Amino acid sequence: MIDLRSDTVTRPDDRMREASANAEVGDDVYREDPTVNELEDRAAEIVGTEAALYVPTGTMGNQVAVRTHTEHGQEVLAERESHVVKWELGGMAQLSGLQVRTIEGDDRGVVSPEQVRGSYVAEDLHRPGTGLLTLENTHNSKGGAAIGAEKIAETAETAHDLGVPVHLDGARVFNAAAALGVEASEIVAPVDSVMFCLSKGLGAPVGSMLAGSEDFIERARRNRKLFGGGMRQAGIIAAPGLAALENRHRLSEDHEKASRLAAGLDGLDGLSAPEPETNIVLVDCAGSDYTAEEFLVACESAGVLGVAFGEHVVRFCAHWDVDREAIEEAVAAVERALRD
Amino acid sequence: MIDLRSDTVTRPDDRMREASANAEVGDDVYREDPTVNELEDRAAEIVGTEAALYVPTGTMGNQVAVRTHTEHGQEVLAERESHVVKWELGGMAQLSGLQVRTIEGDDRGVVSPEQVRGSYVAEDLHRPGTGLLTLENTHNSKGGAAIGAEKIAETAETAHDLGVPVHLDGARVFNAAAALGVEASEIVAPVDSVMFCLSKGLGAPVGSMLAGSEDFIERARRNRKLFGGGMRQAGIIAAPGLAALENRHRLSEDHEKASRLAAGLDGLDGLSAPEPETNIVLVDCAGSDYTAEEFLVACESAGVLGVAFGEHVVRFCAHWDVDREAIEEAVAAVERALRD
Amino acid sequence: MIDLRSDTVTRPDDRMREASANAEVGDDVYREDPTVNELEDRAAEIVGTEAALYVPTGTMGNQVAVRTHTEHGQEVLAERESHVVKWELGGMAQLSGLQVRTIEGDDRGVVSPEQVRGSYVAEDLHRPGTGLLTLENTHNSKGGAAIGAEKIAETAETAHDLGVPVHLDGARVFNAAAALGVEASEIVAPVDSVMFCLSKGLGAPVGSMLAGSEDFIERARRNRKLFGGGMRQAGIIAAPGLAALENRHRLSEDHEKASRLAAGLDGLDGLSAPEPETNIVLVDCAGSDYTAEEFLVACESAGVLGVAFGEHVVRFCAHWDVDREAIEEAVAAVERALRD
Amino acid sequence: MIDLRSDTVTRPDDRMREASANAEVGDDVYREDPTVNELEDRAAEIVGTEAALYVPTGTMGNQVAVRTHTEHGQEVLAERESHVVKWELGGMAQLSGLQVRTIEGDDRGVVSPEQVRGSYVAEDLHRPGTGLLTLENTHNSKGGAAIGAEKIAETAETAHDLGVPVHLDGARVFNAAAALGVEASEIVAPVDSVMFCLSKGLGAPVGSMLAGSEDFIERARRNRKLFGGGMRQAGIIAAPGLAALENRHRLSEDHEKASRLAAGLDGLDGLSAPEPETNIVLVDCAGSDYTAEEFLVACESAGVLGVAFGEHVVRFCAHWDVDREAIEEAVAAVERALRD
Repeated sequence: MIDLRSDTVTRPDDRMREASANAEVGDDVYREDPTVNELEDRAAEIVGTEAALYVPTGTMGNQVAVRTHTEHGQEVLAERESHVVKWELGGMAQLSGLQVRTIEGDDRGVVSPEQVRGSYVAEDLHRPGTGLLTLENTHNSKGGAAIGAEKIAETAETAHDLGVPVHLDGARVFNAAAALGVEASEIVAPVDSVMFCLSKGLGAPVGSMLAGSEDFIERARRNRKLFGGGMRQAGIIAAPGLAALENRHRLSEDHEKASRLAAGLDGLDGLSAPEPETNIVLVDCAGSDYTAEEFLVACESAGVLGVAFGEHVVRFCAHWDVDREAIEEAVAAVERALRD
Repeated sequence: MIDLRSDTVTRPDDRMREASANAEVGDDVYREDPTVNELEDRAAEIVGTEAALYVPTGTMGNQVAVRTHTEHGQEVLAERESHVVKWELGGMAQLSGLQVRTIEGDDRGVVSPEQVRGSYVAEDLHRPGTGLLTLENTHNSKGGAAIGAEKIAETAETAHDLGVPVHLDGARVFNAAAALGVEASEIVAPVDSVMFCLSKGLGAPVGSMLAGSEDFIERARRNRKLFGGGMRQAGIIAAPGLAALENRHRLSEDHEKASRLAAGLDGLDGLSAPEPETNIVLVDCAGSDYTAEEFLVACESAGVLGVAFGEHVVRFCAHWDVDREAIEEAVAAVERALRD
Repeated sequence: MIDLRSDTVTRPDDRMREASANAEVGDDVYREDPTVNELEDRAAEIVGTEAALYVPTGTMGNQVAVRTHTEHGQEVLAERESHVVKWELGGMAQLSGLQVRTIEGDDRGVVSPEQVRGSYVAEDLHRPGTGLLTLENTHNSKGGAAIGAEKIAETAETAHDLGVPVHLDGARVFNAAAALGVEASEIVAPVDSVMFCLSKGLGAPVGSMLAGSEDFIERARRNRKLFGGGMRQAGIIAAPGLAALENRHRLSEDHEKASRLAAGLDGLDGLSAPEPETNIVLVDCAGSDYTAEEFLVACESAGVLGVAFGEHVVRFCAHWDVDREAIEEAVAAVERALRD
Repeated sequence: MIDLRSDTVTRPDDRMREASANAEVGDDVYREDPTVNELEDRAAEIVGTEAALYVPTGTMGNQVAVRTHTEHGQEVLAERESHVVKWELGGMAQLSGLQVRTIEGDDRGVVSPEQVRGSYVAEDLHRPGTGLLTLENTHNSKGGAAIGAEKIAETAETAHDLGVPVHLDGARVFNAAAALGVEASEIVAPVDSVMFCLSKGLGAPVGSMLAGSEDFIERARRNRKLFGGGMRQAGIIAAPGLAALENRHRLSEDHEKASRLAAGLDGLDGLSAPEPETNIVLVDCAGSDYTAEEFLVACESAGVLGVAFGEHVVRFCAHWDVDREAIEEAVAAVERALRD
């Protein structure tokens, strides 16, 4: 099987396993795990923040961030199709009592300063008050769109002018950086916190980082504990995370593979697959005889796995564990499957 | 002062005060207040439901309804500009852990069946599952638009097909009925619960009704207690509420007054005031030199009160305590004020 | 029927009804109801606080107070048998995310300074931090025990030394004041907020007051709105509330009636009814052949109503609507019923 | 330093590291990590339940369990000093809206059937209804008391008779089993779910297990996702967890070390250290000149670490990484330090 369901499926390589086997560890609840500490320092350095915190998942990183920035009962502005709204079980409301006010971004998921200004509400007798703006980059539901640092900056500046902090769901922020040819720190500079995943394109087995100011991370640490994320000798998984950080320089290879996949599928039997910006390929079946589910069945029978993104769209995700040959093979296999 | 800020400002008339003074009362927490019981029966009869519950405010009625229909952690579909989203302090999230997924209705606040279908999410490992659809009629933010019973019905039917119950914020549902020339029960028939206010156009001093099935109301009674709405000898305020119910037949008078007001203001100095559907007049100042706040200041100096609905829109609300002459006076006063 | 279930069952007298009929009213959400304003000023004056807020029920008053004093996620210290713990549907946790840490008071419900000190927890990585101490006076579950002002003061002082504010559930604080022969303001002086009910012994049909500092009440007003307690022409029920305030001087009559009732029932057929401190009589059936429920059935057949307080205890409550003759009659009736 | 602060400080041994290095892994959110699946099957087998779930921490295991058993707004019965009440940031209230009703267990933390019956409340108009009983074994705050299977059984049976499920916080349940000379499955048999830690006495670097019925675990999986516990190639840490499971047979060695430590410290300079039941030694300084903090300072200067459990009590915890010689050394060092 050529598994293109997600870049989360990557398995740790030997270097990561070795790092794990040799990691110096301690009890991270006491902040005595040197490997976790090193990872947190290194992560903060890379994205240009004062501090960072290791969390077991991206969802926890986002939910801890949202809770740490806000007071229970405030309102959060978020792009309508963003992960924190769609795929985290309504955690902002369930866990932190926050009403989300969604903003419909453009077709790449970009939220404009005007939209932020128009959706902002000041706290009064009847209204909760806007407590946070969340952004997402790359934007998963919009096919991995890599939003430019200056776009992030102008939207964040608007929020700041209104007294509203900004959290960036940067699960794939290094994909954005690679696509844009900038350092991730440039994208992160205008926001107040960023979450990025070690376990997606970077290839680590487990974990994500939440980064921000020292004060923010200090308070986030307590919310991590509340959610049950205060692990012990976490150096065992932080070590491969450290190794994985270096993979950020190789993400453009994934983007090339995604590009090749899209080119190979586009036009096949009425399918449409626009040139991807990063490692996510969205295939639109609307012009074909297939629903998303039917196309996925055909793909699976050909040995290729993807996931449905709505009724007519299928997502494929290029990653570390699938090389260029496998991509060619996937294209050929799908082509054959559709022909039959 | 001609007070057009809201139809909530109406004062009880002599008939209502007399009803209060003579009301037979008991302890409603024990369900022994005969006047409350009569009001609940009468309200249920009028909107055509099995049962009804007296609540101190419309906000409590909506919040109790939302909580009673759902489980903590589900998702609620609601029109983006609806009262329950904008003006209730994010109570759905704060009090009941519900994530709202807003739908942008048309310019009258109508939510289409397709939009409901497109916004529905089934519960799964990552997604909360849609637990409720709320509708609003008349739609306050859309200038009191009176949405037709058949529109409500087709949207509600779609929700029901998806297994989703429907609550109607009918704070002004009798205005809708009057404007549409139907019984309120016709509008309510397709939904699972309705809240309507006694204290708005109907003129009662205090209170709203939540109506639905017997089982629903039974469970709502407990949530009312939780929110602190279980009053004692509430017959004192239920009695004027009963009297107020009869005012539903006179609401078209308010609509005529609103219509006259709009006609009088439209075109003045670049103001635009479209013909209202019910008792709410929205005046758009965008074409004038005024912001909403500036226009309100001018009005107030002329002896007329309204409220801002955003940066360029002012809302005036016709009601019981302002008669036709007062409306003429208001038009003339505003005209004079703008001239100077 | 002689209804001794609760002092909430009192019906408004003519003076109250007349006050309601003649009340000057306005929209209290805009703070324009002169009668509500007068009631709030008068209530604050009587209990000696800067400000007060009218709420539809004692439960809302307590829940608003608790929420206003704390941050979501803190811990609240409360006597184990107190109303806010036992009878308010777990609202502190449900609505405000507060963990209650109960303290077992003495047999009169008195919580000692040592207990407060021993139960206090400072906020740290693992612990929520104590955000509030609630006290109750008179203590309902402890048979209406009237806790002395100096006891309240020393416990409150301990809490303040720890940085913890104190809320007093004074649903029947005027009963305490009457029993202790002091002004209510003396009992209230050492605490940060107090809720008292107009609708219990004072005899008003609807409503309670929350009193505290101006800043506290300002913030409480918003939480009242959140819970759906922002009523409109509430002067209609505030007016009888104002009249009811004067009844605080007559509460000792209720205490005498309770005393007579207890004396009459004590010793009957193995029943035990200790001399009450205020208007609440607890009858212990443990020494008789009756369970609480069986005793209540016997009473009801004799024309007397009470409520069960656990398996072996029945509560009777003396109040305004039951005069001395009725108490004598009740004693005689129960005596007859037990004899048969 | 001889680190006796907690059994969480144990570092993975070579066998565990090797297991990690060689673990076959997959994406556990898709349930495709064979090592996690094996660990879950093995854990369920050992404690005798249908299924089990790997969670990153014991806190998450407890909080997921509590949430999965209950409905938002119910009441949970728990021993007053239990971990879930004291050390989890009030998560039951904060995250799941549950009011805790604490029960003061005996001096070993045992909650009696009578206490459960007496604290149970049926859901009604005013009361939340008891939704869960939690027990803890061994009981941390009570010095690692190992509560007998038959005690657990009779308390659980009482709860079940009342329709209340039972969750066991068995963070150290294998210590209990070792001390009692029974299989853990015997202790677990009468309860509905159990959480136990791999990262405490068993020595794994990260993780805990939540075990229960298949249906329960299925629903718990969703709540784990909500809290951010849905990790990816978790086999990397599940593998040492699997290895750690075998250490359950060696826990009595820790108990012997604890026993030796207590005997060595008891009587020193007025200290009192009763014979421990498992691996936790509580040293009471009340009879000495030291506060807990002062004694800890003396210990630390002598090269021995513990933690304060209140003002006069210090906890030492025997574990894997401290052998018998180190215990002797610790005793001698503390003795020397106190002498000087």
